[in-house]
Amino acid sequence: MHARKPHDIDSITDVALRVFAAKGYDAATMDDVAREAGITKASIYHHVSGKEALLERGLTRALDALFAILAEPRAEGGAEIGRLRYIVERVAETTLERLPELTVLFRVRGSSPVVQAALERRRAFDRCIIEIVVRGQANGSVCPQIDARLITRLIFGMSNSVVEWYGSGSSIGRDQLTASLLRIAFDGIAVR
Amino acid sequence: MHARKPHDIDSITDVALRVFAAKGYDAATMDDVAREAGITKASIYHHVSGKEALLERGLTRALDALFAILAEPRAEGGAEIGRLRYIVERVAETTLERLPELTVLFRVRGSSPVVQAALERRRAFDRCIIEIVVRGQANGSVCPQIDARLITRLIFGMSNSVVEWYGSGSSIGRDQLTASLLRIAFDGIAVR
Repeated sequence: MHARKPHDIDSITDVALRVFAAKGYDAATMDDVAREAGITKASIYHHVSGKEALLERGLTRALDALFAILAEPRAEGGAEIGRLRYIVERVAETTLERLPELTVLFRVRGSSPVVQAALERRRAFDRCIIEIVVRGQANGSVCPQIDARLITRLIFGMSNSVVEWYGSGSSIGRDQLTASLLRIAFDGIAVR
Repeated sequence: MHARKPHDIDSITDVALRVFAAKGYDAATMDDVAREAGITKASIYHHVSGKEALLERGLTRALDALFAILAEPRAEGGAEIGRLRYIVERVAETTLERLPELTVLFRVRGSSPVVQAALERRRAFDRCIIEIVVRGQANGSVCPQIDARLITRLIFGMSNSVVEWYGSGSSIGRDQLTASLLRIAFDGIAVR
């Protein structure tokens, strides 16, 4: 079964992200992308300047999706603990819905301007979360004993880790995974 | 400041693991390892057959360190929730103490026999943990609402994520990081 051949930049980006997520960005070549897309390399270069431009499009998609969450009403209003819970839930859902984009974002490293710009946007996202955690700690709804940066990094570390082990053939449903993640992050696994 | 030039297989492996962790295994070359070690490629090949043999040594070190934890008295005896807490603590400590080895282990992918054997050992480790979680759920000390596989994957996902963001220059101490991880995993961040 083959999908329709991609002939626009968005669907070529879809294919490239799947290839980057599967092989790793460094190891993947434009030949791999062309083969997976079922079109010639020349027709890809008709749309895009090269591999790094495809990476940049993927990283922008992933980061735009994450920042869009912060602008949703339930992320912006109400008690901090509720905002955090909503954001962690939506980040997990977004990760599972856009697995190739987020896999590429969470694994990317390097010193190129494209990568550095993406990492800077990730840090800016983290800073928004840290600010909410700090306010939640100040008003007593978030555990004050843990450094707000550590709360942010560890909880998103847990959430981001799903790209390493959650496959499309998994017997575990997305809703179950998201609910389990929320339960551990906010209530822990110990029975009191 | 330069360390003494490595002239035995263990110290060459140390250097190789740092290079693999920094550049990624696929992107790293034996030239990179030789340069970082300050010795010739020929002297590395005197000790080891090639890059994959160095990877295999690193993966074996990482996995031996993880399995050694399971054989420690506090991992083997007592109530399941206490065993789990101890194992999560020791895995985090081991990850921070052996950051290059564990970074390489947690990132490695591919279909080579060396990689597949390491991934099989990782799955065997996970199965040991899942078994303890299941017993803890049966005797009421571990939250029964979450699938035992998900508890295992998410908590180690959180713990393993430290290799992505914890650097040697971090202002956060190892003990603080480990304590924060334990608190989130077992008690969550919400104040009740």
